[in-house]
Amino acid sequence: MAKLTKREDNYSQWYNELVVKADLAENSEVRGCMVIKPYGYSIWEKMQAALDKMFKDTGHSNAYFPLFVPKSLFEAEEKNAEGFAKECAVVTHYRLKNDPVNPGKLIVDENAKLEEELIVRPTSEAIIWKTYKNWIQSYRDLPILVNQWANVVRWEMRTRLFLRTTEFLWQEGHTAHATKKEAIDETEQMIRVYAEFAEKFMGVPVIQGLKTPAERFAGAEDTYCIEALMQDGKALQAGTSHFLGQNFAKAFDVKYATKEGTQEYVWASSWGVSTRLIGALIMAHSDDFGLVLPPKLAPIHVVIIPIYKGEEQLAQVSEVAIEMRAKLQTLGLTVKYDDRDTHKPGFKFADYEMKGVPVRVAIGPKDLENGTVEIARRDTLEKQSMSIGSAVDHIYDLMDIIQENIYAKALKFRADNTHEVDTYDEFKKRVKESGGFISAHWDGTEETEERIKQETKATIRCIPIDNKIEQGICIRTGKPSKQRVVFAKAY
Amino acid sequence: MAKLTKREDNYSQWYNELVVKADLAENSEVRGCMVIKPYGYSIWEKMQAALDKMFKDTGHSNAYFPLFVPKSLFEAEEKNAEGFAKECAVVTHYRLKNDPVNPGKLIVDENAKLEEELIVRPTSEAIIWKTYKNWIQSYRDLPILVNQWANVVRWEMRTRLFLRTTEFLWQEGHTAHATKKEAIDETEQMIRVYAEFAEKFMGVPVIQGLKTPAERFAGAEDTYCIEALMQDGKALQAGTSHFLGQNFAKAFDVKYATKEGTQEYVWASSWGVSTRLIGALIMAHSDDFGLVLPPKLAPIHVVIIPIYKGEEQLAQVSEVAIEMRAKLQTLGLTVKYDDRDTHKPGFKFADYEMKGVPVRVAIGPKDLENGTVEIARRDTLEKQSMSIGSAVDHIYDLMDIIQENIYAKALKFRADNTHEVDTYDEFKKRVKESGGFISAHWDGTEETEERIKQETKATIRCIPIDNKIEQGICIRTGKPSKQRVVFAKAY
Repeated sequence: MAKLTKREDNYSQWYNELVVKADLAENSEVRGCMVIKPYGYSIWEKMQAALDKMFKDTGHSNAYFPLFVPKSLFEAEEKNAEGFAKECAVVTHYRLKNDPVNPGKLIVDENAKLEEELIVRPTSEAIIWKTYKNWIQSYRDLPILVNQWANVVRWEMRTRLFLRTTEFLWQEGHTAHATKKEAIDETEQMIRVYAEFAEKFMGVPVIQGLKTPAERFAGAEDTYCIEALMQDGKALQAGTSHFLGQNFAKAFDVKYATKEGTQEYVWASSWGVSTRLIGALIMAHSDDFGLVLPPKLAPIHVVIIPIYKGEEQLAQVSEVAIEMRAKLQTLGLTVKYDDRDTHKPGFKFADYEMKGVPVRVAIGPKDLENGTVEIARRDTLEKQSMSIGSAVDHIYDLMDIIQENIYAKALKFRADNTHEVDTYDEFKKRVKESGGFISAHWDGTEETEERIKQETKATIRCIPIDNKIEQGICIRTGKPSKQRVVFAKAY
Repeated sequence: MAKLTKREDNYSQWYNELVVKADLAENSEVRGCMVIKPYGYSIWEKMQAALDKMFKDTGHSNAYFPLFVPKSLFEAEEKNAEGFAKECAVVTHYRLKNDPVNPGKLIVDENAKLEEELIVRPTSEAIIWKTYKNWIQSYRDLPILVNQWANVVRWEMRTRLFLRTTEFLWQEGHTAHATKKEAIDETEQMIRVYAEFAEKFMGVPVIQGLKTPAERFAGAEDTYCIEALMQDGKALQAGTSHFLGQNFAKAFDVKYATKEGTQEYVWASSWGVSTRLIGALIMAHSDDFGLVLPPKLAPIHVVIIPIYKGEEQLAQVSEVAIEMRAKLQTLGLTVKYDDRDTHKPGFKFADYEMKGVPVRVAIGPKDLENGTVEIARRDTLEKQSMSIGSAVDHIYDLMDIIQENIYAKALKFRADNTHEVDTYDEFKKRVKESGGFISAHWDGTEETEERIKQETKATIRCIPIDNKIEQGICIRTGKPSKQRVVFAKAY
């Protein structure tokens, strides 16, 4: 297996190679769409299971809404429509026919043109709020707390595996509430859920914050986000939760009868994370040998590799390996015993390193003599020989240790790469030379935000939720500012 | 809540009303596409979990392939393309723009026309086999055992909730093998998996069989199916597993190097079940009061309803109810305590009957006096008063008892409605008057099959796998036949 490009040589190429070599995903025959391979998909399944439980524990149910949105519904909420109009896949026909000129080929049947075009959902607020109109009559019907796991399509010009693809998988929560406060509480609750997921499962520390008006979701009153820092010093928006106000309720005329008998528009939130999280997971932790996975999201926790010559040795090693596997499985771990005779141990070692399996156990003839096994940690690359008797408990403990270590490492990296900056010169130098999160004063205007973006490529990632109010001076204009915001170049 | 139409008055209307009143699904604003509501979706989640485990236990992994299929790939396997060409949603453009004539409206941007049209997948053999070409070089790469959970689109002219919708959710397994035997073994294994799921989880007995050539999947060499009998005497195809031969390998030039170094085309299977299963589940078991769910697929196993006047009585009842809920939850059951004060007990009784909750517990002031609760079974509608002390164990036992009873009832119904018939007059009478499965001799020709279909609307559902060879005479032509096949009118 050819080695990975090193991160310091070309981070972008390192990422692209890693996604393919770790068997996570690949580009497909369809422009901008990816194939998520079994190993990559199993990480997504782990993410889904954890998130789905968190959604259900906070009172949400799953449902499913149509893939297609009729154009007249799509355009009903104008800002939302404007935001997505330029990247919509449009279905115009519903039949193919034989090509009279080229036998065996098919062409679009012009007689099967749709009266109204259908948009492949880039997000589902429109179709869902059209549906909610029928579900909501009175305050008794509220709140509606629904989530959908689905595919969506946004016609992106530049795509990258997991980070930005034309089709991607995501979940989108869509809630309806009687009061503004309830809708805001929900919006904030869900950004906290995302932050908890990122930190506890992915081992990725995130900043929770509010987007500036320029960076809001099209159709939202406020967009909350979680922002993570990648190893190249760029930020990645990992999840968003939107307070939609009454915008969609007004666009689709969704009112409810209050207890007092008046009619009021309904308040809304929507929130989502996508397969982009896998990109964040890769870029936050992995190294020049490949993927590094936190145990909580690793499809395989432990791989056992036999070192042997001949059938007899393999049989002896296998006996120990299979017993160890059984014990580890009893503890709830996923264990693979790779006794394939088609590949050498060295190849297997490199392959499971590439795939980020948290713990590797090697068992050879010398181990059998000594009653030991060799245990290797993927996160630190440390190897250790240990008696068979204590190995199982040690490996079990390692799961928590590795999970915590990965998070601690990412947290330290972020601390080392977060800087308060007070002058524009220093700001530009930081952006250019080291990247990272830059905390700086901003005068609060869209003009200044845009100017800084044009001049440095850094954008305001968010206004942190727990921001302290602090008088200061905008780095770009010198105008007064009442708080710092977080800048970075971003994916 | 208005009552359901009775099955004997109008079975079709009974079904349509039930799907909506039980809160399972509804028609959407998009022609032929449904909204699967939270309660209906939670049944699908139960089905998915059980099936997914069965797939993984038989060595399969999940993956994800693009929603879109470029037209040139779609048409590569000619029979498959021909089979689906007439019901394809086609994406032709990737952008909308403002309508210069109607401000606030959008129109398709003609400058954003795709060079090659994209088909919204009606099934994924084409895109998957194009991908497998890159995954398969040698025998070491085989078998590939992959499944995908996804949405697909088939532009159906007449749609019905769950049974036939333009978009539906399904899983599609796509496997690649070195030998013909292996591919056939896989195809047969998966139809057995489907049969086991239908019988053990859905409580629906099925016939496993082979489709006649006329009824095969477009592009398959052989199609295995499971066929279930609905209460109106019509059959429903509940799952299919296809032996694809080397058809897709040849269309996409997928060869592998054998151990001996020769190049051979790869052998294939594909298999799927869909949200149609929910339609089968409904029609197999439900009655004039609503849904009847087998406990293994019921989103709620037990509902507890308090009967009370005033806060004090409610508090007393709640104490007992909450303790019982906790005990049942410890046993792994999903329990809802419905103490809403916005609805009366009578309404709740009818509502949970409509939703098919297997067991209802009612607790009132008299029960508190006597130390009893009232337990009602949804499948038999029997009610029973029982001491609180024995209720929990009894309810737990009821889950298996109800699961088995539902299956036994469906099995008896099928036995009562399956008939061997030896003359065409008797055949026509049966089809017209009673429906059900009709086992009859057929001369094996497509002409006769088609003629019987035209004359009676009954089709050959399948040639059962365990068929006994038996000399006979075709009911329609009098020509010799070597086995009976199963006829029915079908959904």
